[in-house]
Amino acid sequence: MKIGFLGLGQMGAAIAANLVRARHDVVVWNRSAEKARSLVDAGATLAASPRDAATASDVVFSMLADDAALNAVLSGEDGVLAGLKAGALHVSMSTIAVATAGDVAARHAERRQRFLSAPVFGRPEAAAAAKLFVVAAGTAADLESARPLFEAISQRVFYVGETPSTANLVKLCGNFMILAAIEAMAEAMTLAEKGGVPKAKLLEVLTGTLFDAPLFRTYGTILAEEKFRPAGFAAPLGLKDMRLASQAAEGERVPMPLLSLLRDHLLQTIATEGEDIDWSGIGRTIARNAGL
Amino acid sequence: MKIGFLGLGQMGAAIAANLVRARHDVVVWNRSAEKARSLVDAGATLAASPRDAATASDVVFSMLADDAALNAVLSGEDGVLAGLKAGALHVSMSTIAVATAGDVAARHAERRQRFLSAPVFGRPEAAAAAKLFVVAAGTAADLESARPLFEAISQRVFYVGETPSTANLVKLCGNFMILAAIEAMAEAMTLAEKGGVPKAKLLEVLTGTLFDAPLFRTYGTILAEEKFRPAGFAAPLGLKDMRLASQAAEGERVPMPLLSLLRDHLLQTIATEGEDIDWSGIGRTIARNAGL
Amino acid sequence: MKIGFLGLGQMGAAIAANLVRARHDVVVWNRSAEKARSLVDAGATLAASPRDAATASDVVFSMLADDAALNAVLSGEDGVLAGLKAGALHVSMSTIAVATAGDVAARHAERRQRFLSAPVFGRPEAAAAAKLFVVAAGTAADLESARPLFEAISQRVFYVGETPSTANLVKLCGNFMILAAIEAMAEAMTLAEKGGVPKAKLLEVLTGTLFDAPLFRTYGTILAEEKFRPAGFAAPLGLKDMRLASQAAEGERVPMPLLSLLRDHLLQTIATEGEDIDWSGIGRTIARNAGL
Amino acid sequence: MKIGFLGLGQMGAAIAANLVRARHDVVVWNRSAEKARSLVDAGATLAASPRDAATASDVVFSMLADDAALNAVLSGEDGVLAGLKAGALHVSMSTIAVATAGDVAARHAERRQRFLSAPVFGRPEAAAAAKLFVVAAGTAADLESARPLFEAISQRVFYVGETPSTANLVKLCGNFMILAAIEAMAEAMTLAEKGGVPKAKLLEVLTGTLFDAPLFRTYGTILAEEKFRPAGFAAPLGLKDMRLASQAAEGERVPMPLLSLLRDHLLQTIATEGEDIDWSGIGRTIARNAGL
Repeated sequence: MKIGFLGLGQMGAAIAANLVRARHDVVVWNRSAEKARSLVDAGATLAASPRDAATASDVVFSMLADDAALNAVLSGEDGVLAGLKAGALHVSMSTIAVATAGDVAARHAERRQRFLSAPVFGRPEAAAAAKLFVVAAGTAADLESARPLFEAISQRVFYVGETPSTANLVKLCGNFMILAAIEAMAEAMTLAEKGGVPKAKLLEVLTGTLFDAPLFRTYGTILAEEKFRPAGFAAPLGLKDMRLASQAAEGERVPMPLLSLLRDHLLQTIATEGEDIDWSGIGRTIARNAGL
Repeated sequence: MKIGFLGLGQMGAAIAANLVRARHDVVVWNRSAEKARSLVDAGATLAASPRDAATASDVVFSMLADDAALNAVLSGEDGVLAGLKAGALHVSMSTIAVATAGDVAARHAERRQRFLSAPVFGRPEAAAAAKLFVVAAGTAADLESARPLFEAISQRVFYVGETPSTANLVKLCGNFMILAAIEAMAEAMTLAEKGGVPKAKLLEVLTGTLFDAPLFRTYGTILAEEKFRPAGFAAPLGLKDMRLASQAAEGERVPMPLLSLLRDHLLQTIATEGEDIDWSGIGRTIARNAGL
Repeated sequence: MKIGFLGLGQMGAAIAANLVRARHDVVVWNRSAEKARSLVDAGATLAASPRDAATASDVVFSMLADDAALNAVLSGEDGVLAGLKAGALHVSMSTIAVATAGDVAARHAERRQRFLSAPVFGRPEAAAAAKLFVVAAGTAADLESARPLFEAISQRVFYVGETPSTANLVKLCGNFMILAAIEAMAEAMTLAEKGGVPKAKLLEVLTGTLFDAPLFRTYGTILAEEKFRPAGFAAPLGLKDMRLASQAAEGERVPMPLLSLLRDHLLQTIATEGEDIDWSGIGRTIARNAGL
Repeated sequence: MKIGFLGLGQMGAAIAANLVRARHDVVVWNRSAEKARSLVDAGATLAASPRDAATASDVVFSMLADDAALNAVLSGEDGVLAGLKAGALHVSMSTIAVATAGDVAARHAERRQRFLSAPVFGRPEAAAAAKLFVVAAGTAADLESARPLFEAISQRVFYVGETPSTANLVKLCGNFMILAAIEAMAEAMTLAEKGGVPKAKLLEVLTGTLFDAPLFRTYGTILAEEKFRPAGFAAPLGLKDMRLASQAAEGERVPMPLLSLLRDHLLQTIATEGEDIDWSGIGRTIARNAGL
């Protein structure tokens, strides 16, 4: 199968490498072409534009920073929409707004191009190890055609439903849940510490009892050791995702007071610590607010 | 070893039964004596007062509903303090205020009685199966002397430190974490459902990826199926625990806005649904607030 | 002076009428022309497009529903930007985003057109009575040239500074303050009522002591009498303003937890009561959340 | 009329002085007697105990720091309850818990002593100038008998109803409203300042338009000038009042998320700034959280 891949950041590059490794014929494109070098060395071809990558492909993946970047890659003379054949498939893995996913789906439908929204859970290490989780929505047929490719990059695929944008909604819910877990741990650890219980001790009890999942271990350790830099996922990116969730919630008329709290804590963290701190840096804010 | 056991509610009765089963010599007491019947049938002895149960014992356990019940059992002519021998040990398993645990520790110390605070995590089924988690604080020597007893009733013991009340602080932090997890899931599920994703589908993704722990499965299912009655842990009891956590936080000067949110949602739930709903009924409140 | 006036909703029509009454030569335009009839009867002229209204005028006022409506009136072949003479003045009275005001200022500056941002406080009755408050920002010279016109429509003019968009920021802060006052009164009234004190009695004490301002009397009475329909200012419009404030706060990295709370209460109100309720309908939500 | 007066702090001493000035026969008592000196110089008599002050009086006023101080003055051999004649009146002006006021009322009723709860609004300067606002609850007859005394110390008396504790509920609602107004102003000022509008400029617009009441001028100026020390009303006292309001709200099952926010901001302020800051110091916290 001929595959296009657009967007070679940390995540995209790792995913594309796994597709190359699985012996697919991969055409890559990135805004700054030098990021494509190691993929080309591994056997990928470099395209001159998103359109060129799309024209050559049965399936084109995109993994871009935000809604604007995705729109830029889709639109215009050099864009995917102009190049993708009728019947070919675009798989969008970016974390974007629910409304944007709906727009993109409609634009492809107008051109009889197929579209699957398939954001992923997992950090760059998981992407490199082909251990991502894929959350996909679109027609069942499109999912089946993409499944072998997903299997080359992930440990598991979840099928959410027919409407592509619902996959994005689930992705935003997941990121909200992660930050909510960080907030809860950080508040509990701050209370514990001021009350004479070391943060690591509380974490040992939590992960040894009810919160026995890697998420709590990973972020709990970051909180206990206060290792907020370098950022694995920077606070402004977390803020962007919470804003997207908030926009979806506003559109659906869903009050989400915990989401509101998370946004306010991210804002405080960025205002007082700078833009380069990890999103789990809300833990520092919570501790500072208690005078620690 | 001669063991006293005070408080035979659902939790206490199950724990005491495991101590009897482990062939200890157990003297039980409960405010209403009829709850002791099955334990007596199993081999326990019934005491006429907390004092009598304490006088006869090397170790006396208490598992009571709240601070007032514990104080009633400790104080006065018929109380534990009057009966317990110098050098004998009181193990308090109740979920009580941090400050109360400190007071109890001081009152025992005045009388050269030993004191271990050892609240537990786990529901009645876990108690019956000897699968509780014990969170203990007090001197290391006291913990060691109680350890064989804990092993008869639990799957694991955590030692928090020398100051008994810190175990209660950890217990309150844990209950806060559980309700925070329910809040987060309920907000996410409400957004998902209004956006076209069934709650059970979101739960499948969450527990299949990052939130792969029994807590999320158990409470997630309750939320997805809206099974808030009969209550496993009634909302007013949850409110009591959040109030105790809040008092500790106020005493330590720790702002905990997520804890504040949980209290307000419990209050709304009780005000609109009644006192008999499970504490996870905040999920209903969150859904109703979105018009569901 | 020749004056253009764009946007003849309740507010715009009342303001324009006062300009006509002050014997200015007023050219009016509205998307649906029939709303201009009474003004034309009173002596105004009807323009065929925003551009025509602008071309004929030394000063053109706009009072439109939102950012999109303002942009539509400004842009394109028939827009204000194409028509307004160099050196002529646009006075924007709409409640719009801070960022939008900045964009509009820049677009006028490119064409050497002058721009004053001058949103107002006051409801339609106040507009009709020429009792508005004008909050203006732009150059001092531009303010002075507009001052006689402001005097014909308002009771007082506040000059905020040189940067036009700061007037919009102040306007959003003011609307936030109003809704915050409603929230505070509604929470207090709900507590009072459940505790045996009628809402009107609490209001009498509040406005008779520390909160002796028309705002508290007006909205306090609405809350006490639960007169949330017909809406004086509909909840979705209030939500729009809170969203604009929230966007400004996010841009400036300012956590505003009270603003977040107001947004969530507006969302709940709209979700459960519908789109036609007054923004003070958050009072109903607050009462319902307490089981009233 | 013979009057007893218990509690000569800043507020109590100023009120008692006005009663002396109105030529009443006043017997005073304070825990530390030296605070009574200037009143004795002005014509008051010093009592040796609360009981003695009560025994001699037709009406005994109390103005004490908190629930514990009031209970201490009422109870025991030397307390008011033991001394006050049947049919004599106790007027309690302290800011205390609603539940405490109910208890005190019941204890007086048992002894056929009369009881009026009459907390006040106003700072020490207002007390000295006899410009307080009295919020009274109890029987109408008791209010009428106390009215001439209230007129000697206040500018206006509000009658809330028959149940004494409702006056305390109204007082707590009022203090909640004041701190809510401070919160709202502080959030708005922080946004304004980061957006380029000086705090004093925003305040000028607010108080010149919709918030034209002394409260907003007074606290607005404190916020604009950041004069949080010395405290007029210290943050821990404010926290006590918010806790009392919160207890009342919990008892009545009323979620009050804005009250929760205020408590958390007071906690942060005390944790980071110390116990000696004014309760309006939440304004500093709000500014710091935005990086100012």
